[in-house]
Amino acid sequence: MNGAAPAALAQLAERFGDTLSTAMAVRRHHAEGVTWHATRPPDAVLFATSTRDVSDALTICHTHRCPVIPFGTGTSTEGQISAERGGLTIDLSRMTQVLRISPDDLDCTVEAGITRKALNAALRDTGLFFPIDPGADASLGGMASTRASGTNAVRYGTMRDVVMSLTVVLANGDVIETGSRARKSAAGYDLTRLFVGAEGTLGVITEVTLRLAPIPEHIGAAVCTFPSVDAAVSAVVAAIQSAIPVARAELLDALQISACNRYSKLQLAERPTLFLEFHGTPAGVDEQVSRMGTIAAEHGGGAFQWATAAEERSRLWQARHDVWWAALALRPGAKGLPTDICVPISELPRVIAETGRDVTELGLIAPLCGHVGDGNFHLCVLADPADDDERGRIAELGRRMVARAHAVGGTCTGEHGIGTGKMKDLVAERGPAMATLAALKRALDPRGIMNPGKVLRVDAYRPYD
Amino acid sequence: MNGAAPAALAQLAERFGDTLSTAMAVRRHHAEGVTWHATRPPDAVLFATSTRDVSDALTICHTHRCPVIPFGTGTSTEGQISAERGGLTIDLSRMTQVLRISPDDLDCTVEAGITRKALNAALRDTGLFFPIDPGADASLGGMASTRASGTNAVRYGTMRDVVMSLTVVLANGDVIETGSRARKSAAGYDLTRLFVGAEGTLGVITEVTLRLAPIPEHIGAAVCTFPSVDAAVSAVVAAIQSAIPVARAELLDALQISACNRYSKLQLAERPTLFLEFHGTPAGVDEQVSRMGTIAAEHGGGAFQWATAAEERSRLWQARHDVWWAALALRPGAKGLPTDICVPISELPRVIAETGRDVTELGLIAPLCGHVGDGNFHLCVLADPADDDERGRIAELGRRMVARAHAVGGTCTGEHGIGTGKMKDLVAERGPAMATLAALKRALDPRGIMNPGKVLRVDAYRPYD
Repeated sequence: MNGAAPAALAQLAERFGDTLSTAMAVRRHHAEGVTWHATRPPDAVLFATSTRDVSDALTICHTHRCPVIPFGTGTSTEGQISAERGGLTIDLSRMTQVLRISPDDLDCTVEAGITRKALNAALRDTGLFFPIDPGADASLGGMASTRASGTNAVRYGTMRDVVMSLTVVLANGDVIETGSRARKSAAGYDLTRLFVGAEGTLGVITEVTLRLAPIPEHIGAAVCTFPSVDAAVSAVVAAIQSAIPVARAELLDALQISACNRYSKLQLAERPTLFLEFHGTPAGVDEQVSRMGTIAAEHGGGAFQWATAAEERSRLWQARHDVWWAALALRPGAKGLPTDICVPISELPRVIAETGRDVTELGLIAPLCGHVGDGNFHLCVLADPADDDERGRIAELGRRMVARAHAVGGTCTGEHGIGTGKMKDLVAERGPAMATLAALKRALDPRGIMNPGKVLRVDAYRPYD
Repeated sequence: MNGAAPAALAQLAERFGDTLSTAMAVRRHHAEGVTWHATRPPDAVLFATSTRDVSDALTICHTHRCPVIPFGTGTSTEGQISAERGGLTIDLSRMTQVLRISPDDLDCTVEAGITRKALNAALRDTGLFFPIDPGADASLGGMASTRASGTNAVRYGTMRDVVMSLTVVLANGDVIETGSRARKSAAGYDLTRLFVGAEGTLGVITEVTLRLAPIPEHIGAAVCTFPSVDAAVSAVVAAIQSAIPVARAELLDALQISACNRYSKLQLAERPTLFLEFHGTPAGVDEQVSRMGTIAAEHGGGAFQWATAAEERSRLWQARHDVWWAALALRPGAKGLPTDICVPISELPRVIAETGRDVTELGLIAPLCGHVGDGNFHLCVLADPADDDERGRIAELGRRMVARAHAVGGTCTGEHGIGTGKMKDLVAERGPAMATLAALKRALDPRGIMNPGKVLRVDAYRPYD
């Protein structure tokens, strides 16, 4: 237990009663999530029900210098919810209210604990939808905190683009609004974008104002196989360069398709495959499809297989969202390590090809899926946690991938974040800017209580003077 | 002269020789620009030619606590370039190199002093263009600093969306890169978005990496008159809500059209008018036009008048970009005060109507133009600087407009920024978050030398502890 925690916990117990839990099962659950990294449980878990709860909890924790870890659904992959220095986990999963939907303005405000699927259910009948769709049914606060994206990002952007404003509780318990409901603003520093992607290290997000998208009049979804991963990637890159407004362009390699066939009971040809989706008017979709078809054929792609019925489309995309579980099922008992580099799209074919050679050389099992329209792809590296040698080879793969991304101006993480897992990679990526990150962290969280041990080591950098 | 300036100036003169000017005409020119606000000249102007120059200058100024004001083209409207506390203006207009264009990745890197028109000239023959187009032919560094947008924002976003990374010289002379060339990243705090819109108060931008857009295969441009401003605005709001991907939707009221006819030698009907533009494939544009035509007719709009030839289209849009000069020409000798509120689009018709009543009631001359697809509009309030009574009525108009924007969740500035002119409005808008802005400013510029007297009064807020 953290030295400061007992005094804080006593005060928290008094304020919150039963909604504060110190049961070991609860504490463990709130640290582990789906990550591959070693985790440590918090000393207690608070099930917050309001911004006021969170503010009161932070005021107490700030006084006692007790660490605070925000928790949504626990689906972050880089150890973001581990209580590295003990302290209090604040679980926001009971804060699920939709506070406002304004169909005329295409925006809404929700509590941070609501998940993306629950939000889309609430939007039913408005003609609008919320397009950001990471693999997990994550909470909106968590998605904002890790700057999440998903399969629609090439057309609809990431959380960076769709969050209009946040309600944030700062380390000292102060509550701020980071933005407004205007679609654009030049009014002072962009606090919204500062808290989006901060992984809970600068404050706790309790409410999220989101830009929504009109449900497209017509959707065309297809799968298309290719002779090689390289050919499939090159086809998507050519489509982006030709300004075809592809809504989704997801690549699965042959091994991943095989895993999906088994897990999701599909009968897809086990070859490198693009899952494509086009949004627009009927005529617009036809035109996009015709152009994409030409480009695919030029790259050796097969005919498009169509999923026109809504249920069939849902089944296909659910299979895409379940790639993680499908991959894990390839090797029972294995843990999955997701890689996440993102590079300029012109570099993607070469980077994926070289990575494929690394996987073979290192003797690993690692099905691939990629948001190739963004230059972002994942391997799900399947690992026996007890096998130290394999662990070493996986670490080597990760190092090579990140170095390759950095060499071409890319990033070590397209959408999963830093957590505990990529802190060294961040230092390699940001260089002298790390001191700037540290200065911001120190300014907003001078006592270092907000999700400590994640993203960056503040003490490694001197304050500006 | 600032107390710290003499020592700094001596050292700067030694380092920079002739590229440092203390001529009064040069100093005055660098403070006034186009703003309506009172300005103060700097003690000297440095014509920087490299990031190294800027870094050396900041190192000297930091040592001597000498204020530094970054300068691009001097076209900011809210007093951003005034040397409120004297010091050194760094003019970046000689830093105009295009450092890299990567057509395959749809991005480029340029020095901060290049203007948007010069960049687009350099992009000729690449099939790409840079879509952000404020009224002035501003520099990219200045546009990033004020989070500029323009007529294309409804489709292509603002500087917030298209800047991928910046090279920034910090207050102490350190040089950092704020991002990468990946199209998305979850790697640490979003420094790019922090410096975009910081108006030079956190550092000097010396290089800008930008996302570019493919030149649309087909462009349709039209003008359409309406019986009232309200009808025109409502038509655009309906189009946005119907997901018509309008590229540009600019409103000019009858007075502004009259001004444009005279200034730009056009023969437009002097009624509220939308300037519309549609981008896409020929079939896609046809479809958008047909849908927009139906919506316009439902709101009492006349037939679309087409400008199909590229020169005719350019002439039309040049007239749109020249509204400011056209408006000023309505009242020779007058100065123009541009307003800039931005509100949720559903509120726009009412807000514009109420503002129109204020203009009449206060006896002002104020032609209107608006980026109505974003909820943002400008009045060019024409003022005799010597008329104190009129000045008071203009101030009253500004207060009412900003209060009205805030009442509906909008912002006091959609794209012009805060400068010296809107500091009180910012306080009203951001509330408790002002302390957070101050904490960031203090963290990155502890000596307060970066464009002091703009955006916020740091000393009004206590640091977090």
